Amino acid sequence: MGKKKKEFVEEITPMEEDFAQWYTDVIKKTELVDYTPVKGFMAIRSYGYAIWENIQSYADRKFKETGHKNCYFPLLIPESLLKKEADHVEGFAPEVAWVTHGGDEELAERLAIRPTSETIICEMYKRWLNSYRDLPFLYNQWCNVVRWEKATRPFLRTAEFLWQEGHTLHETADEAQDETLKMLNIYKEMAENLLAMPVIIGKKSEKEKFAGAHATYTMEALMHDGKALQAGTSHNLAQHFTKAFDISFLSREGKQEYPHHTSWGISTRLIGGIIMVHGDNRGLVLPPGVAPTQVAIIPIATHKEGVLEKARELFESLKDTARVELDDRENYSPGWKFNEWEMKGAPIRIEIGPRDIENGQVMLVRRDTMEKTPVKIDELSKLIPELLQEINHSLFQKAKKMRDENTHYVKDLDHLKEVMNTSQGFAKAQWCENEECEEDIKTVTGATMRCIPFEQEDLGEKCPFCGRDAKSTTYFAKAY
Amino acid sequence: MGKKKKEFVEEITPMEEDFAQWYTDVIKKTELVDYTPVKGFMAIRSYGYAIWENIQSYADRKFKETGHKNCYFPLLIPESLLKKEADHVEGFAPEVAWVTHGGDEELAERLAIRPTSETIICEMYKRWLNSYRDLPFLYNQWCNVVRWEKATRPFLRTAEFLWQEGHTLHETADEAQDETLKMLNIYKEMAENLLAMPVIIGKKSEKEKFAGAHATYTMEALMHDGKALQAGTSHNLAQHFTKAFDISFLSREGKQEYPHHTSWGISTRLIGGIIMVHGDNRGLVLPPGVAPTQVAIIPIATHKEGVLEKARELFESLKDTARVELDDRENYSPGWKFNEWEMKGAPIRIEIGPRDIENGQVMLVRRDTMEKTPVKIDELSKLIPELLQEINHSLFQKAKKMRDENTHYVKDLDHLKEVMNTSQGFAKAQWCENEECEEDIKTVTGATMRCIPFEQEDLGEKCPFCGRDAKSTTYFAKAY
Repeated sequence: MGKKKKEFVEEITPMEEDFAQWYTDVIKKTELVDYTPVKGFMAIRSYGYAIWENIQSYADRKFKETGHKNCYFPLLIPESLLKKEADHVEGFAPEVAWVTHGGDEELAERLAIRPTSETIICEMYKRWLNSYRDLPFLYNQWCNVVRWEKATRPFLRTAEFLWQEGHTLHETADEAQDETLKMLNIYKEMAENLLAMPVIIGKKSEKEKFAGAHATYTMEALMHDGKALQAGTSHNLAQHFTKAFDISFLSREGKQEYPHHTSWGISTRLIGGIIMVHGDNRGLVLPPGVAPTQVAIIPIATHKEGVLEKARELFESLKDTARVELDDRENYSPGWKFNEWEMKGAPIRIEIGPRDIENGQVMLVRRDTMEKTPVKIDELSKLIPELLQEINHSLFQKAKKMRDENTHYVKDLDHLKEVMNTSQGFAKAQWCENEECEEDIKTVTGATMRCIPFEQEDLGEKCPFCGRDAKSTTYFAKAY
Repeated sequence: MGKKKKEFVEEITPMEEDFAQWYTDVIKKTELVDYTPVKGFMAIRSYGYAIWENIQSYADRKFKETGHKNCYFPLLIPESLLKKEADHVEGFAPEVAWVTHGGDEELAERLAIRPTSETIICEMYKRWLNSYRDLPFLYNQWCNVVRWEKATRPFLRTAEFLWQEGHTLHETADEAQDETLKMLNIYKEMAENLLAMPVIIGKKSEKEKFAGAHATYTMEALMHDGKALQAGTSHNLAQHFTKAFDISFLSREGKQEYPHHTSWGISTRLIGGIIMVHGDNRGLVLPPGVAPTQVAIIPIATHKEGVLEKARELFESLKDTARVELDDRENYSPGWKFNEWEMKGAPIRIEIGPRDIENGQVMLVRRDTMEKTPVKIDELSKLIPELLQEINHSLFQKAKKMRDENTHYVKDLDHLKEVMNTSQGFAKAQWCENEECEEDIKTVTGATMRCIPFEQEDLGEKCPFCGRDAKSTTYFAKAY
């Protein structure tokens, strides 16, 4: 069994050796996802999709608690609609998949598969909005979108991905800004509490903002390899689209006014983030909140009388406490199963064999620390929920420590370049916010501005990269 | 108020006058759905989408209870894959939307937006299946599909619709057949218990079966106007696709074998069915299981002290009992709200005014019967769940009675023609199952075979339409 174990684990390339290959090994071998014959498109397998369902269920509840309702808008958008907001079409046109034929007939106008739905939704909102009494519009949709990306990687950047896009309209600019930040904060709460993923929230630069936005806010997480991941965005679109689409309402003062508009989204990309924040060389380490199986029960020496019965009894007694799976497959050894569940990142493993049963206990193994503890069977139903919380907390603290240790206060362009060429991670500096400077930084170091965080520090008066007056503490990093 | 009420209700065309216009009025005025600038594509508004969410949640639970897991497969299918199963491509090619360009580049091979996913899923299953130990494959996906339909009607037939498609693989033909019927029975149970919609289940003819299927099973419901609606289908695909896609597994006997395959689906079309089975001239009548708002509380004379407070108190005390909404909008009169909630089909309306509060009671109004009953406030939390069940039962019985009264035993082609030209409804006869006869029936009467039900009767020895030997009791109808 020792030998088998070794072989099994060695199938995953160590992350220190080749992080990209480690990622590919993990997602393939844990059956989260697979490549398909359509370049850039992924098939999300049941284990990966179950993680997405857990994210969806949590986020959807939060959206509904804050008054949002779900709708569904068309997959296809006429080219003329996509072109109505100038910045928007410029940003998205290069990555649109075009439908040109329906059956045997060529279409009079090309249709874009939605890369995002602002334009088609605005066209409908225009019809639905009459008076200030109708506002706010607080709608969301869960759907697929397509962006014709050249270089793709499952979950992180794919031609098709699943996401939610919230689209709201408000009477005043203040309300729209409040909504933009409220949703960003919901994302942050979800990232930290459900995914155990620490994030920095803040504002994007003019260059990095969403095509058509007045301002884009983002949450940014740091991955194991020192690269940043934009994990969710919330846009204040002001009146850019509502003017372009001529959406107006009768105000309290009896005038026709343009409403203020927001949009915000998270996607299956978050799954990539979970993998790269928590995973290790044994494979996945899933935060309990999204783990499809929170507790894997593995019976040992099942040929011995009573073992399987007891394992089933245990499963029955725990199945309402957590997402528990009894792995009673006959064709695999316990050792093989241990390895598989480690690789698949189940937060807790319970081993139960004849001697354990005699002693009224089981062996409990934590995936995050690999600690093994004997636990009385009677105590399990109380212990497991507490332990899942403890694991979640511990994963968050570990990730936060990693992020803090990899956040560098950089003193000039050479320093930033050096950081980006070695350990990477977040670099922070008091930055001028000038677009030329931003482009220089990218060209020289490969890093992009990730965000101007809400929590500002005082890191100096001059921009360390160009010498202009400094404006804001800013985070830079290489990013996915 | 009397006048306003009248005006309001008159906005819906009576169904006896023009059923198609009644349907259009209902879906537009209740804000279930809207037309979009993309021909044949609909926007599902929040009230309509909430119905779909309730259907999804119920069906998804049933699928999971029977061992199925969700996955997600690509939206786009290469033309060459779509062509692998000959009958399948013949059936679907005329209604495929084709993607020919990604960004500025023309694609080397056209990509079909999935009209259904058998082909792309088989391509992936081929990679995932090795041995009999991996079987059964029990997967489902919730997604959008596109079929380039010429004549569309919201929910019933649209170019894009939302659905679920289950795709399973099995070791033996018997298991696949069992799965096919198991899922059909889950659909029937859902239609009858959740949607209060009586259905007839049975088999399709060779002509009417799914393109590429060995056998198609269906559930058929009868609408108010006497037309049938195919409300869900379950296909035994045998080895048609697994052979075409060369999917094989190592059997228990150590041989390479082709697995047996099923697929099954229900869609947003069910919402159209709910409207046309239960609706009346006041608008929607929603079965409690799917109604977004099961109980609408409408305060009366809100300027009087204590009314709004009491209504809010009532809302708080009931909100965990059912899906309750407090309609405290200020700009609408109670009469306007009564009409709106009737039109929107909320199963129960509660009116609460100053005199009610004095008497410790409310006025409760059932949407299905329009019965008004005073009820003690203390009794509501016990009464409401019972009443919702009673309404569901009553809706089902009413729909079943309507269906039974509109099911005709037809004696010959002229009789069938007469029925189809007058009351319509289901026609049953002992049929020969001959394809020529089937085409004659369609040409002469406009009716198609809906299904050969599992519950067979003995209606004669000769086919009443062509004189050939009769084989099976069969239902015919004009259909959506």
